[in-house]
Amino acid sequence: MKIAQFGLGPIGLETLKLAASKPWADSVGAIDIDPHKIGKDLSHLTGHRSLRRRLVYPSIDDLLKHAKPDLIFHTAVSKFHAAFDQIEPIVRRGINVVSSCEELLFPQFRDPRLAARLDKICRRSGARVVGTGVNPGFVMDLLPICLTSVCRDVRSITVHRVVDASTRREPLQRKIGSGLAPQEFLRRFRKGTIGHAGLRDSLALIGHCLGWRLDKISETGEPVVAKCHIRTQFLVVVKRGQACGLHQRAIGRENGRVRLTLDLKMYLDAPDPHDRVQIQGDPPLDVLIRGGVAGDQATSAALVNAAPQLLLAPPGLRLITELPAGHFA
Amino acid sequence: MKIAQFGLGPIGLETLKLAASKPWADSVGAIDIDPHKIGKDLSHLTGHRSLRRRLVYPSIDDLLKHAKPDLIFHTAVSKFHAAFDQIEPIVRRGINVVSSCEELLFPQFRDPRLAARLDKICRRSGARVVGTGVNPGFVMDLLPICLTSVCRDVRSITVHRVVDASTRREPLQRKIGSGLAPQEFLRRFRKGTIGHAGLRDSLALIGHCLGWRLDKISETGEPVVAKCHIRTQFLVVVKRGQACGLHQRAIGRENGRVRLTLDLKMYLDAPDPHDRVQIQGDPPLDVLIRGGVAGDQATSAALVNAAPQLLLAPPGLRLITELPAGHFA
Repeated sequence: MKIAQFGLGPIGLETLKLAASKPWADSVGAIDIDPHKIGKDLSHLTGHRSLRRRLVYPSIDDLLKHAKPDLIFHTAVSKFHAAFDQIEPIVRRGINVVSSCEELLFPQFRDPRLAARLDKICRRSGARVVGTGVNPGFVMDLLPICLTSVCRDVRSITVHRVVDASTRREPLQRKIGSGLAPQEFLRRFRKGTIGHAGLRDSLALIGHCLGWRLDKISETGEPVVAKCHIRTQFLVVVKRGQACGLHQRAIGRENGRVRLTLDLKMYLDAPDPHDRVQIQGDPPLDVLIRGGVAGDQATSAALVNAAPQLLLAPPGLRLITELPAGHFA
Repeated sequence: MKIAQFGLGPIGLETLKLAASKPWADSVGAIDIDPHKIGKDLSHLTGHRSLRRRLVYPSIDDLLKHAKPDLIFHTAVSKFHAAFDQIEPIVRRGINVVSSCEELLFPQFRDPRLAARLDKICRRSGARVVGTGVNPGFVMDLLPICLTSVCRDVRSITVHRVVDASTRREPLQRKIGSGLAPQEFLRRFRKGTIGHAGLRDSLALIGHCLGWRLDKISETGEPVVAKCHIRTQFLVVVKRGQACGLHQRAIGRENGRVRLTLDLKMYLDAPDPHDRVQIQGDPPLDVLIRGGVAGDQATSAALVNAAPQLLLAPPGLRLITELPAGHFA
């Protein structure tokens, strides 16, 4: 499988390196708009010798002058609309896309018309698109969905995820509001410039799979306030009283009844990180992932492992739940 | 979807009742060889009024004289060869099958030629077959397989399952050797007349999905010996010193190195029942299902929930890992 990388941020570089280690993948180049990266040799950017003479191009058109990938890993944006503009020229050329774009998890939820358009373009060109990752993409959606396969009845689902953000990349430490005054945190959360993208998408995907008509989806975000001075390995500095992360919660109701609760805490030095899925049903299930699924490393794995599964699916805009069971590839 | 039930033991009856509660399923009848059941009305056997005038027939041919199901739930045998003889006449007529037969989880492991033959018959007639359940089918195979989708590397996998057999159906309490003298237990385990069917199948399926060439698969079974007198709700009586269940273990090696360990304890009054999947990899994962996935109820759910997913797959002999993500349907 000839692959290329779109977006060379921390997740993009991890994905590129992981793909380069796979015997089934041959990396042919990358795309990034950063002028400091364009023209660079990927072996220099990654330290992987197998990527020698694979370069960074400013656009898909420039990449295609040199090689045609079968599949592109897209790790550039969180919003469906922005992702559409980047992905549409790729799939129009019949090239498959695995994307970390949070709103591509279930784009029909964000913009059904645009999703239908992307699906149509894919079917016409023979390409496939899927959005995945660890969250969204696994812990707070796919995993609870799969767990219900052994349930005779499901009344409600609650997922808790606690992430120690100290172990995560700098952009994520910023994205959760580290170092902001609580009021500024709330202002930016309401504006949508900080916070975890994709929580409502995860919730909507679960509802979709279980056939629940969620008539109300609400979401709240609050700062977790630092009790002491914190300084991370990326030199993010948080003073006592400032936000050191977030507590975000999405709730989905059907006919006024709470069906789904997704509760996410990501903050610096969070104790006891874990993921927990509780299904109130028959049988009830209580699943605990001790330590949680570590974010950044696992996200690159989710993207790379999804690639072979995506090629097994029919052309179109696919949901991760429509692919055969994912696994280490 | 018109469905029928093949086999009216405890699991079959649960499956039939659960399917009868689904708005998308219309039960048209059942098949069983028990002369006491043939001709009976399914509403009497199950207490479900929606099954009135749905009868038990002695064979697929007799059932087909009255109605043609789209899919049959097959809960009758553990061995692939026996299942083949029962399923072949069904799929030959283009009827899909979801089976609890343990060796149908990964029949290519048991008999690749017969599996290829079944696959060919299915493709020709347009039918699909899949084997699933809770174990095998979920806890000790599909779940660990899916968990590896967020791993950059997987070195080995260990699954522990502890089941309190006191809560399970009588045939299971017998199947795990309850009430046998330890020597007799070992004799019967070696003969294959007691023990959990499907442990090596689970192991082989994981190895298959992860691309591991397991050159050695070993399996051991030992009695768990009762420390006091036990009498179950099904009047199974176990004296002190007799077997009250089993400890079964399968290990898969690749080039002499242990890759997979499946460890199953099923015994009467087992304390702290649970399922635990540990993946030694990057990231490592440690997943605990508190209380475990309750067996019999969950098995009927796994079968019924798999039906809509199976119909989405191309015709042929399918593995549960080849279907789109399963979920409550």
